[in-house]
Amino acid sequence: MSEATENYSHSPNGESFLLPSPADYEQEWSRLKQLAQIHRERGREIVVVMGVGFVGAVMAGVVADSTNETGSPGKFVIGMQRPSTRSYWKIPYLNRGVAPVEAEDPEVAPMIKRCVLDKKTLTATFSYDALSLADVVVVDVQCDYHKETLGDVRKGHAAIGALEKSLKVIGEKIDPRCLVLIETTVPPGTTEYVAFPIVKKAFEQRGLDDAEPLLAHSFERVMPGRNYVSSIRDFWRVCSGINDVARDKVVKFLSEILNVKKFPLTVLDRPIESETCKIVENSYRAATLAFLDEWSVFAERNGVDITKVVEAIKIRPTHSNMIFPGPGIGGYCLPKDGGLGVWAYQTLMGFDDDLFKITPMSIDINDTRALRPPQLVRDALRNMGKIVPVSRIAVLGVSYRQDVGDTRYSGSEIIVRKLVEMGGEVVVHDPYVKHWWEFEKQDTYPAPGHSWKRFFRNQDDLVDLRVETDLAVALEAVDAVVLAVRHSAYLNLNPDEVVGMTGRPVAVIDCFGILNDDQISRYFELGCEVKGLGRGHVKRLKDKVRSQVK
Amino acid sequence: MSEATENYSHSPNGESFLLPSPADYEQEWSRLKQLAQIHRERGREIVVVMGVGFVGAVMAGVVADSTNETGSPGKFVIGMQRPSTRSYWKIPYLNRGVAPVEAEDPEVAPMIKRCVLDKKTLTATFSYDALSLADVVVVDVQCDYHKETLGDVRKGHAAIGALEKSLKVIGEKIDPRCLVLIETTVPPGTTEYVAFPIVKKAFEQRGLDDAEPLLAHSFERVMPGRNYVSSIRDFWRVCSGINDVARDKVVKFLSEILNVKKFPLTVLDRPIESETCKIVENSYRAATLAFLDEWSVFAERNGVDITKVVEAIKIRPTHSNMIFPGPGIGGYCLPKDGGLGVWAYQTLMGFDDDLFKITPMSIDINDTRALRPPQLVRDALRNMGKIVPVSRIAVLGVSYRQDVGDTRYSGSEIIVRKLVEMGGEVVVHDPYVKHWWEFEKQDTYPAPGHSWKRFFRNQDDLVDLRVETDLAVALEAVDAVVLAVRHSAYLNLNPDEVVGMTGRPVAVIDCFGILNDDQISRYFELGCEVKGLGRGHVKRLKDKVRSQVK
Repeated sequence: MSEATENYSHSPNGESFLLPSPADYEQEWSRLKQLAQIHRERGREIVVVMGVGFVGAVMAGVVADSTNETGSPGKFVIGMQRPSTRSYWKIPYLNRGVAPVEAEDPEVAPMIKRCVLDKKTLTATFSYDALSLADVVVVDVQCDYHKETLGDVRKGHAAIGALEKSLKVIGEKIDPRCLVLIETTVPPGTTEYVAFPIVKKAFEQRGLDDAEPLLAHSFERVMPGRNYVSSIRDFWRVCSGINDVARDKVVKFLSEILNVKKFPLTVLDRPIESETCKIVENSYRAATLAFLDEWSVFAERNGVDITKVVEAIKIRPTHSNMIFPGPGIGGYCLPKDGGLGVWAYQTLMGFDDDLFKITPMSIDINDTRALRPPQLVRDALRNMGKIVPVSRIAVLGVSYRQDVGDTRYSGSEIIVRKLVEMGGEVVVHDPYVKHWWEFEKQDTYPAPGHSWKRFFRNQDDLVDLRVETDLAVALEAVDAVVLAVRHSAYLNLNPDEVVGMTGRPVAVIDCFGILNDDQISRYFELGCEVKGLGRGHVKRLKDKVRSQVK
Repeated sequence: MSEATENYSHSPNGESFLLPSPADYEQEWSRLKQLAQIHRERGREIVVVMGVGFVGAVMAGVVADSTNETGSPGKFVIGMQRPSTRSYWKIPYLNRGVAPVEAEDPEVAPMIKRCVLDKKTLTATFSYDALSLADVVVVDVQCDYHKETLGDVRKGHAAIGALEKSLKVIGEKIDPRCLVLIETTVPPGTTEYVAFPIVKKAFEQRGLDDAEPLLAHSFERVMPGRNYVSSIRDFWRVCSGINDVARDKVVKFLSEILNVKKFPLTVLDRPIESETCKIVENSYRAATLAFLDEWSVFAERNGVDITKVVEAIKIRPTHSNMIFPGPGIGGYCLPKDGGLGVWAYQTLMGFDDDLFKITPMSIDINDTRALRPPQLVRDALRNMGKIVPVSRIAVLGVSYRQDVGDTRYSGSEIIVRKLVEMGGEVVVHDPYVKHWWEFEKQDTYPAPGHSWKRFFRNQDDLVDLRVETDLAVALEAVDAVVLAVRHSAYLNLNPDEVVGMTGRPVAVIDCFGILNDDQISRYFELGCEVKGLGRGHVKRLKDKVRSQVK
């Protein structure tokens, strides 16, 4: 890359923004000071949200949109983002009133627009100087977990460096009475074992020897989808502070911005308790999902339709959260949070025993589950006298969850990469995904590391894999169709229409209990092969169709 | 034992019953024939329930108590039990109108009495001849899982012999049009791979070569406690039949005896699907409980109170079934059902891979969790300058679940056996348990195998361990108190009263999140030591009390 290119940040829509120069910083500082003064005069607290990514951008909006008991805004929010080529574009976007995240929730865009342009309670900046103006800093800097291999989460580490750097800057800049609320999902112990010494030391270097950093932790329970804003604002929160002052401050702050009347706060004694809470919560979910993997395979091998079994069990209120896992468990949190827990136990707390069993095993099971659909593709094609390397395979659905466009760690990514590794030609379709970032040339956004690429061979052909939005185009002349996500558009696909689009009998692989028995039987009548994760009963349906044909 | 003694069956209350002689069988056959004729003339179906144990006795009552659309009884029920010294007493008990099972549910005793003495729709017999009168046979013969070691459920096998014997007799006796409903929790595949060939062969030996056995499977979802009857009658059922006739018959039968209007039946295609359903359902529960074990230890070691974390997580509807596991997971089902599944996969289906991971691991974790409270007793006593071998330790609560008297595979049993193995003197208390069968001299009832005894040394002293019902007597002069079960009587025990009863400061071990922080602090003020499963915050409370004392 030329130096000129390096000085620009490109938005997902291809717009380019020149990174700020030293002169820009001076001007920005004046602007922020002036804004802070105006809002303080109106009795507003200054809240800096560090990191305007997936969570931070919407959190900034929720805080800026909140009102005090008289119905007026009580907070002025400065969204802060380091001016990297990867992320700088978010700042001008926000300052135009445009949300820098894509969301299925129709509340996101108008909320950001309203706060920036109408209420004027939200601005964005690239300058750390904003921190010195803050009454509250909300830290939404990502803490990833980097795996070194696929299927062994113990081999990996928490990527806590960005968070540590942010905390150092915070310690260097903030007023010591400022509340620092860490909202990032972190390894348990981070607030006390990592953040406290960093900020304390920075305070000491500023001569603030007696100042106790007012650190707090409170995790979000964000759920991508149509209720994204609501999942931040109108949902139960857990919080904690490192001392009594911090605890009181975080309770007060959250009570002012969230719907705590309907969703009361849970206040825990120590930050490690709320940090642990988040990890246990997501690890529990990962474990309940991983549990079904072995029974799914048992079902496939022994004539059981596991999806009907799951429905029969879910009817019990005590078992209603059972979910058929589909082709792997993606999303940003579930594949990593347990890893942060195990890492903390060994690294921050210094234990060397193998205490953790189900937590890491669940992640390993979930991470490798998506290797199974390619096996079913292989077996179904073989029944039709074909092999993967000379076949064209359509994967329908590339996001990690039904009816959202979030592709992070999706099972479909592994399905595609594995099929390509096996020599197949893959086309993909998804009504919600315009860019499948994990396969884009520019591996600079939305974030590095969110890809399984490094664990597979033959991935070079996948550069610029385009997500087809026309189903008929995606299905044309394919040998196999993988139904990978329960998007509503896929639930009632008519077998006759599908075979009309493919132009010939195909192998159909159902990864998610998408096909009902009538559809499966119809595919067999049309000469197709059908296999599915956990769907051991398809052989019975096939035999029935074949015997009727005779 | 003398021969005379061998001919008697002793009830739990010590009453003795002479086993039936050959002449008794003739007389019994006349009685049953006559009864069947009377009830058939009234348009009633004859239902034989094989095995009147924990499930069968109450199932027999539910069927006998059911009414047809005109409000009259539609079934005459014969409860059948092999006349062994262990179980024969149940027959005369039932025929007096007395339930042969102890239950906290106030509905059990009057239902049995009503059906036997008033409605006269229920009788009990020791004679297999009853089978030849049946329109429906409900099989409630136990199928245990025998473990060969503690903490490795893979080392063990399904004790399917009793069930096989029963099925052989059924095949020899029943009318081939009789529906055989297997209600026992069995290894998946049992109805098709085990029961079908046995009954089919018996039919052939009777010259009934063309008769297809009408086998069905439908599992109960019984929950010991105050809603025991309701958990059989008023709850969702899953069923399946081996062919269309059997499936139709089982749907009709269950619809006539259960509250299917409010709790609709789920009908699955094949028996293996409903058999698998039960195993997956209970294995899921076992897994969700086992999951918390590692986090409970993490919490203990790192200053986290896991019980508060669990409460903070349970508030989410998707996580509301999270349960703090206490000292191990007992009850008849959860410690064994996953074992039946793994055994079936390897034995009936003949696979040799290690497909199953979370299912057996969860049982192993749950089975060994109760070894931890004795460690906490040891550590707490050490803090007080004592060791286990010269200490007297009270264990409060011996059943496997709060506010019930069912002691099968309870965590408390392992706690007691381990403390004794370590040389401690143990006294036990439970308001719901009169006889702790696992420790009784007569190891003949309620069932063999329901004891962890064989995995511990030094258990001879425990013969006739008496369950103390007076708390003051149990606590007198003890060095340690283990709060093992969340019985309501233990939830609000006042620390001052407890120390008043012990007569000195003691080690208090909380296995089940029973103590609140005020109680813990008060114990410390009284000079006691407190430790608890997952309660890593006690050290903070202790330090606070100690610093205030200074």
